[in-house]
Amino acid sequence: MTEIRLTANQYGKAENRVVRVTRDTDRHDLVDLNVTSQLRGDFDAAFLEGDNAHVVATDTQKNTIFAFAREPISSPEQFLVKLADHFTGEFAWVSGGRWAAEEFGWSRIGDHDHSFYRSSPETRTAVLVRDGGTDALISGFSGLTVMKTTQSGFVGYPRDRYTTLPETEDRILATDVSTRWRYRADAVDGLDFDATYDSIKATIMTTFTQGYSKALQQTLHAMAAAVIEAHDVVDEIKFSCPNKHHFLSDLSPFELDNPGVVFYAADRPYGLIEATFQREGAPTADAAWVGIAGFC
Amino acid sequence: MTEIRLTANQYGKAENRVVRVTRDTDRHDLVDLNVTSQLRGDFDAAFLEGDNAHVVATDTQKNTIFAFAREPISSPEQFLVKLADHFTGEFAWVSGGRWAAEEFGWSRIGDHDHSFYRSSPETRTAVLVRDGGTDALISGFSGLTVMKTTQSGFVGYPRDRYTTLPETEDRILATDVSTRWRYRADAVDGLDFDATYDSIKATIMTTFTQGYSKALQQTLHAMAAAVIEAHDVVDEIKFSCPNKHHFLSDLSPFELDNPGVVFYAADRPYGLIEATFQREGAPTADAAWVGIAGFC
Amino acid sequence: MTEIRLTANQYGKAENRVVRVTRDTDRHDLVDLNVTSQLRGDFDAAFLEGDNAHVVATDTQKNTIFAFAREPISSPEQFLVKLADHFTGEFAWVSGGRWAAEEFGWSRIGDHDHSFYRSSPETRTAVLVRDGGTDALISGFSGLTVMKTTQSGFVGYPRDRYTTLPETEDRILATDVSTRWRYRADAVDGLDFDATYDSIKATIMTTFTQGYSKALQQTLHAMAAAVIEAHDVVDEIKFSCPNKHHFLSDLSPFELDNPGVVFYAADRPYGLIEATFQREGAPTADAAWVGIAGFC
Amino acid sequence: MTEIRLTANQYGKAENRVVRVTRDTDRHDLVDLNVTSQLRGDFDAAFLEGDNAHVVATDTQKNTIFAFAREPISSPEQFLVKLADHFTGEFAWVSGGRWAAEEFGWSRIGDHDHSFYRSSPETRTAVLVRDGGTDALISGFSGLTVMKTTQSGFVGYPRDRYTTLPETEDRILATDVSTRWRYRADAVDGLDFDATYDSIKATIMTTFTQGYSKALQQTLHAMAAAVIEAHDVVDEIKFSCPNKHHFLSDLSPFELDNPGVVFYAADRPYGLIEATFQREGAPTADAAWVGIAGFC
Repeated sequence: MTEIRLTANQYGKAENRVVRVTRDTDRHDLVDLNVTSQLRGDFDAAFLEGDNAHVVATDTQKNTIFAFAREPISSPEQFLVKLADHFTGEFAWVSGGRWAAEEFGWSRIGDHDHSFYRSSPETRTAVLVRDGGTDALISGFSGLTVMKTTQSGFVGYPRDRYTTLPETEDRILATDVSTRWRYRADAVDGLDFDATYDSIKATIMTTFTQGYSKALQQTLHAMAAAVIEAHDVVDEIKFSCPNKHHFLSDLSPFELDNPGVVFYAADRPYGLIEATFQREGAPTADAAWVGIAGFC
Repeated sequence: MTEIRLTANQYGKAENRVVRVTRDTDRHDLVDLNVTSQLRGDFDAAFLEGDNAHVVATDTQKNTIFAFAREPISSPEQFLVKLADHFTGEFAWVSGGRWAAEEFGWSRIGDHDHSFYRSSPETRTAVLVRDGGTDALISGFSGLTVMKTTQSGFVGYPRDRYTTLPETEDRILATDVSTRWRYRADAVDGLDFDATYDSIKATIMTTFTQGYSKALQQTLHAMAAAVIEAHDVVDEIKFSCPNKHHFLSDLSPFELDNPGVVFYAADRPYGLIEATFQREGAPTADAAWVGIAGFC
Repeated sequence: MTEIRLTANQYGKAENRVVRVTRDTDRHDLVDLNVTSQLRGDFDAAFLEGDNAHVVATDTQKNTIFAFAREPISSPEQFLVKLADHFTGEFAWVSGGRWAAEEFGWSRIGDHDHSFYRSSPETRTAVLVRDGGTDALISGFSGLTVMKTTQSGFVGYPRDRYTTLPETEDRILATDVSTRWRYRADAVDGLDFDATYDSIKATIMTTFTQGYSKALQQTLHAMAAAVIEAHDVVDEIKFSCPNKHHFLSDLSPFELDNPGVVFYAADRPYGLIEATFQREGAPTADAAWVGIAGFC
Repeated sequence: MTEIRLTANQYGKAENRVVRVTRDTDRHDLVDLNVTSQLRGDFDAAFLEGDNAHVVATDTQKNTIFAFAREPISSPEQFLVKLADHFTGEFAWVSGGRWAAEEFGWSRIGDHDHSFYRSSPETRTAVLVRDGGTDALISGFSGLTVMKTTQSGFVGYPRDRYTTLPETEDRILATDVSTRWRYRADAVDGLDFDATYDSIKATIMTTFTQGYSKALQQTLHAMAAAVIEAHDVVDEIKFSCPNKHHFLSDLSPFELDNPGVVFYAADRPYGLIEATFQREGAPTADAAWVGIAGFC
């Protein structure tokens, strides 16, 4: 009989939608999370024999998430660390795992004490991968759509028999920014994750506005450099950014000019640029990135 | 042979993604629309005999939309009226149609001249239905998620053998507001649609925050009354609002209390409340609402 | 103060995901439904005063759905009628409502007794609208994608200054069939809904294959005529069908011909044809169609 | 100034929707693909200086895909190899890349010569990663939903203070099978990919039906073992499978029993089991898996 070997595996409860309300005073606050817990360790018997003696039920993982939300949640990252410590501390055979959260941003309606609207276009993300005693903590966001209506071009690329694209020195540059950054391991403890998140997001948005973009690649590099320069707690940052094409509409059949005014926003296909930038000299953590969709 | 009769019908080009950039000065502006054009009129021959002599090609409708976007677009509503006038004016057999637009909201990054991010959580909508010489213009929005963390309850409902829900005088009230309002026919000409939109949206959000909600129904009525009271150009308003349940997590098995702190945000099933409110004495326009999903 | 009037309204519990297993013998069977219940009647006090004395809780509606699923479900339509009879019979102020179901189709893996896979590309739908003592029962499906790789063309359409589309006598015709048909009121009782569904679906698919299509409109008429001809229980049928464009790829820059071989399948914009066909002499039921998305 | 280093990166054109019709005879055939091409190599100058001399335009990659579709496509895998050979052969600085395809399955309506419907519930996938001269070819599928209505249980798991789940020896087991398998490097050339795909899919479905499942983990291991045993061209297989919970509806408040008949199909949270199985002694290829979502 063929021999097969169980290698990488993890399991748990995905997408626990936890809303926590702080109501110590009449001025409430809320945290809105989508939490996934997955355990790694010695689970071979479950796969090979259906012996569940080590299988902390995914239902138990769910219960733990909701029970832990009874205490204040200072950030998604802090909450994930707490879950990781619990599961790896409580069960001898749980050597690690992957804990992930999405956070949805709310703002007060007016300045009301207990009424809110979901305001953030982007989804904030956090992933903690613990494996063999080391942690990798990766934060980020997705779904932030940005556009420059000028100061972007694309020229000087190679031409072969399949090249028909004309060069342009004035086009729309638009993308949905998806980015993830990995924190320096010794910076995690006590870090103000919310402030850092806000600062990195602002750095990315501001850098996007600056200067002339010769290629989306160049813009991604500029954003990465600005983030790493300004945030010494970040060791690595990845971007996965579609080039959301806005094609100039050809109005000449209708005897109309179109000096950069009317565009057709296309769906598919789209350009897709993925890149990783690392702080010089920082350690790598490739295994921690496995399973994060759409990044290379 | 059975006789069948062609009754209501319309056709056209759906979801034309038009982005228009105003670049008269260095400070650009942009309009981002998803436009659908559908014609009504004498199209029987196409259905019955495949005779296309009356079928203004959907491709032609698309071209017209992009060509018309060469001129300034003051609002989605104004753009739809222009399309309607063109198609019903140009082709004798086109007696009406349905033109619809979604608008996606962008804001400047910082106060940058030509860099923007997609900021609006909600999608603005506009529908113009022209039929038999009369117009109905319906504006609205969808996807605005709001939440009150207190000042909401649900008591006093009938109990039968299938009732298990306990009464509560303190719960989370959360919904995705989808609303559409119909303008008074003689108010459309020259109306500042953008200002009216902003005002109606603000009225709805502010009303949501006010007072104690005995039922989502009561809240919808309050929002409708406030909109109609403050906007004499609105004859009718509809809401279609899910009751997005946030269930108090039962932490008692873990010897924890839960005084309104930890909630599980459920997906399905959800409550769903749909209601129409009309200004007393205003004319109805039921046919115009057909085909707008999820409203009654 | 402005007077506003509550007009059309309904409320209930949406998207109850019920799976029912028949296990009287070792050969199991299953029904997989997504059921929505909404009540109409005298609910003014809830809206106007927050008085819930008439508000059968949406949670109670959910419980009723699951309790009723304890008995065999012979078809989605039969299940909706049972719910309608219950709610309008039990509560004096409930004069009607709207009950809807989606059904997802499963097949046995091999011919296994209790193992299944979700096999149907289409979603079957059923809607029962009861209002003022009359019922309208509307069945249908959505999401059935069909394609003809030849025997379709589009010529003879009018040309204006915005027309650039070349005529073609050989193109791909592809659409996602969404259709809904209304049963003759006196045919509902005792009808074999599953057999009728299968027969109507087969009629539509077979008719799609037949002959040369001069326009999608002509094809829809042919499908409608075939359904109404062959099914005397159907009084009315609607179609809402995108023209899913497959554009011939221009390979001439690469010195390649393209005799109908390589196509680009576009997303947006798309043609959209909506049409209603009624059996000659059958009664109309326009109000029942309100709120069904995307049909005219 | 902080030094940052560009590490992993790739770019290209994503989601090119190619439909190819074989029409040599009156009996047509079609291939429906969604193709992504991304290049790796020496692209540093684009990122660092906006120098595009090496940047084969994503538009050129798109053109190449459509041009290559002019020739017969025997399988998605074969098409990806052809693209990889072209780009790495044509441009000296392109050392590798990632080419991916989704395939959508169509069947004939009846046995018609040129009319088809989209029949496959699952999406077939293929990914070719070429890096540093070595290829990894990974095929698979997603979206195949399967269910066993009995012969599944979950007992013997550890209980801690957060455990409330009761043991059960008869439950519904349902999942959406997502799987990817990696071909042995020397088996790729000349392999009948379509036949292998059909055989692996059948093996997975058949194994799912067999025996009593003590845990979804055990079932995944059984499926993996069967695939690897029966297909010596497969070196590795991964599964990512949600445990789609079907909770027994509690009907006791209504004085009804529920002997495994009525279930509530929940959305979120859900169990999630991910596992990798390797043929004993086969080489690993971890880097090739990066960026495939939802697998560990």
